[in-house]
Amino acid sequence: MAKLTSRAEDYSKWYNELVVKADLAENSGVRGCMVIKPYGYAIWEKMRDEMDKKFKETGHENAYFPIFIPKSYFEAEEQNAEGFAKECAVVTHYRLKTDPDNPKKLIVDPEAKLEEELIVRPTSEAIIWSTYKNWIQSYRDLPILINQWANVVRWEMRTRFFLRTTEFLWQEGHTAHATKDEAIEESEKMLDVYADFSENFMAIPVIKGLKTESERFAGAVETYCIEALMQDGKALQAGTSHFLGQNFAKAFDVKFTNKEGKIEYAWATSWGTSTRLMGALIMTHSDDLGLVLPPSLAPIQVVIVPIFKGEEQLEQINKVAFEVQAKLKAKGISVKYDNRTEYKPGWKFAEYELKGVPVRIAMGARDLENKTVEIARRDNLTKETQPIENIENYIEELLATMQKDIYQKALDFRNSHITEVNSYDEFKKVLAEKGGFISAHWDGTAEEEEQIKNETKATIRCIPLDNKLEEGVSLISKKTSKQRVIFAKAY
Amino acid sequence: MAKLTSRAEDYSKWYNELVVKADLAENSGVRGCMVIKPYGYAIWEKMRDEMDKKFKETGHENAYFPIFIPKSYFEAEEQNAEGFAKECAVVTHYRLKTDPDNPKKLIVDPEAKLEEELIVRPTSEAIIWSTYKNWIQSYRDLPILINQWANVVRWEMRTRFFLRTTEFLWQEGHTAHATKDEAIEESEKMLDVYADFSENFMAIPVIKGLKTESERFAGAVETYCIEALMQDGKALQAGTSHFLGQNFAKAFDVKFTNKEGKIEYAWATSWGTSTRLMGALIMTHSDDLGLVLPPSLAPIQVVIVPIFKGEEQLEQINKVAFEVQAKLKAKGISVKYDNRTEYKPGWKFAEYELKGVPVRIAMGARDLENKTVEIARRDNLTKETQPIENIENYIEELLATMQKDIYQKALDFRNSHITEVNSYDEFKKVLAEKGGFISAHWDGTAEEEEQIKNETKATIRCIPLDNKLEEGVSLISKKTSKQRVIFAKAY
Repeated sequence: MAKLTSRAEDYSKWYNELVVKADLAENSGVRGCMVIKPYGYAIWEKMRDEMDKKFKETGHENAYFPIFIPKSYFEAEEQNAEGFAKECAVVTHYRLKTDPDNPKKLIVDPEAKLEEELIVRPTSEAIIWSTYKNWIQSYRDLPILINQWANVVRWEMRTRFFLRTTEFLWQEGHTAHATKDEAIEESEKMLDVYADFSENFMAIPVIKGLKTESERFAGAVETYCIEALMQDGKALQAGTSHFLGQNFAKAFDVKFTNKEGKIEYAWATSWGTSTRLMGALIMTHSDDLGLVLPPSLAPIQVVIVPIFKGEEQLEQINKVAFEVQAKLKAKGISVKYDNRTEYKPGWKFAEYELKGVPVRIAMGARDLENKTVEIARRDNLTKETQPIENIENYIEELLATMQKDIYQKALDFRNSHITEVNSYDEFKKVLAEKGGFISAHWDGTAEEEEQIKNETKATIRCIPLDNKLEEGVSLISKKTSKQRVIFAKAY
Repeated sequence: MAKLTSRAEDYSKWYNELVVKADLAENSGVRGCMVIKPYGYAIWEKMRDEMDKKFKETGHENAYFPIFIPKSYFEAEEQNAEGFAKECAVVTHYRLKTDPDNPKKLIVDPEAKLEEELIVRPTSEAIIWSTYKNWIQSYRDLPILINQWANVVRWEMRTRFFLRTTEFLWQEGHTAHATKDEAIEESEKMLDVYADFSENFMAIPVIKGLKTESERFAGAVETYCIEALMQDGKALQAGTSHFLGQNFAKAFDVKFTNKEGKIEYAWATSWGTSTRLMGALIMTHSDDLGLVLPPSLAPIQVVIVPIFKGEEQLEQINKVAFEVQAKLKAKGISVKYDNRTEYKPGWKFAEYELKGVPVRIAMGARDLENKTVEIARRDNLTKETQPIENIENYIEELLATMQKDIYQKALDFRNSHITEVNSYDEFKKVLAEKGGFISAHWDGTAEEEEQIKNETKATIRCIPLDNKLEEGVSLISKKTSKQRVIFAKAY
């Protein structure tokens, strides 16, 4: 197996190679669309199941809405339409027919042209709010708390595995409320759910914040976000939660009678996370040997590899290994015993390092004699010998420790990459030499934001929610500012 | 709440009303596409989770392939292409732009025309086998055992909730094997998985069989199916499993080196079930009051309704009801306590009957005195009084009994609707008067099959796998036949 390009050599190349070699995904024959391979999909399934549990615990139900949005619906909320019009896949026909010039070819049947074009959903506010219109008459019908797991399509010109693909998988929550306060509370609650999931399940520390106007979701009044920091010093938006005000209710005429008997437009939120999180996972934890997975997300948490000469030794090891495997399984730990004879132990070690299996147990003839095993941690690459007795308890604790350690390592990196700067020169220097999040004053205008973006490629990632007020002067216009915001180059 | 149309009055109307009133689904603004509402989706989730478990237990992994299929891929397997060309949604453009004549409108941007049209997948053999080409070089790479949960689009002219919709949700298994026998074994194994799921989880009895050539999946060598019988005497195909031979391997040039060192094309299967199963569920078990759900599929298995006068009584009942609820939950039973004061008990009874909640517990002041509750079964509408002590054990057993009883009732109905006939006159008489499955001899030709279909609308549902050989003469041509096949009108 050829080694991965190292991160230091070419981070982007390392990422692409890792995705392919660790069997997470590969390019397809369809422009910008990828195939998510079983190993990658198994990780996504774990994310999905955990998020789904959290959504249900917070009172949300799943539903399913059509993938197609009639053009007239799509147009209804103007900001939203304008934001997505440039990247829409459009269905115009509903039939193919045999090419009269070549019976082996098919052509679009010109007689099967749709009266109204259908947009493949880039996001579902339009189709969902056209439906909510029928569901909402009175405040008693509210709140509506719905989530959808679905595929969406945005025609991206430059695509990258997981981070930006024409089709991607995601969840989108769409809620309707009787009051503005309740809708804002919902957007903030779901941001907290995302942050909790990201930090405690994916071991990815995030900053919770608000987007500036220019970075807001098309059609939103406010966009909340969680921002993570990748190892190369670039930020990655890991989830967003939008307070949509009454924009979609007005576009689709969704009114209700409130408690006071007055007619009012409903208040909306939407919130989403996607397979993009796979990219965040990879670029937060992995190293030059391959994936590093927090135990919570590892399809295989423990692999047992026998070290043997000859069939007799293997049979002896098999006996013990199957016992250990059974004990670990009984603890709910997913464990694979790889006793294939066509691969050498060294090959297997490299393979499971590449795949990010958190714990490797090696078992040789001498271990059998000593009643021990060798345990290797994937995250920090340490090895130790442990008695085989009660090994299942030891491993259980080890996995919990590793989950914490992997998070702590990412947190330490992130915290050491938040730099406060007080001048534009300093800003540019830190951005060039260190990267990461840069905390600086901003004058609150789109102009300054735009100029900084054009000159440095850094954008305002967010205005942190836990900001403390602090007087300062902004980077370029030197106007007074009351708080710092977070800048970074971003994926 | 207005009553449902009765099944006797208009079965089709009853079905459509039930779907809408029980909050399973509703029509959307997109032609032929429905919205699956939370209650309907919760039932589908239970089906999906159970099937997913069974697929994984039989060694399959999930993956995800692009929703779009380039036209040239789609054309590659000719039979498959021909079968689906007439009902394809086609993406031709990737951008909208503002209408120069009306700034509030969007139009398709003619400059954003795709070089090659993309087909929204009606089924994924083409895109998947174009990928498998890169995965398969040696017999060591086989078998590949993959399943995908996805949405697919088939442009249907006449649509009906769940049974036939333009977009639907499904799972599609796609496997590749080194030998013909292994592929056939896989198709048969997955048919068994479907039959087991259908009978033991959905409580729907099915006949396992083979399709005739004219009813085969486009591109298949053999199509296996499970056929269920609805209450109105019409059949419903509940799942299919296809042995695809080497058709797709040849279309996409998927070759491998076998154990003997020879180059060979890979052998394929595919198998699928869809949200159509929701239709089968409804039409197998439900009655004029609404849904009847087997406990395995019920989002709410038990509902507790308090019968009270005044707040004091309600408070007393609340105390006991919450205890019962907690005890049932501890058993893993999903239970709702509906103590809303704005609805009367009678309204609630009707509501939960409509929704198919298997068990209703009513709790009044006298029950409190007597330490009893009233238990009503949704399936057979019987009521009984039971001591409240250990009620959780009683309910647990009751749910298991109901699961069996619901299946047995459907099985009795199905078995009493398989009629052997020995002449075409008898065939037409049974079809008109009784419906159901008709077991008759067939001469094995597409001509006789076609004539029967044209004259009676009945098709050959399947050649049962467990058929015993029996000499006879066919219905029309009077040729000798060695076995009976199953005819029916079908959804």
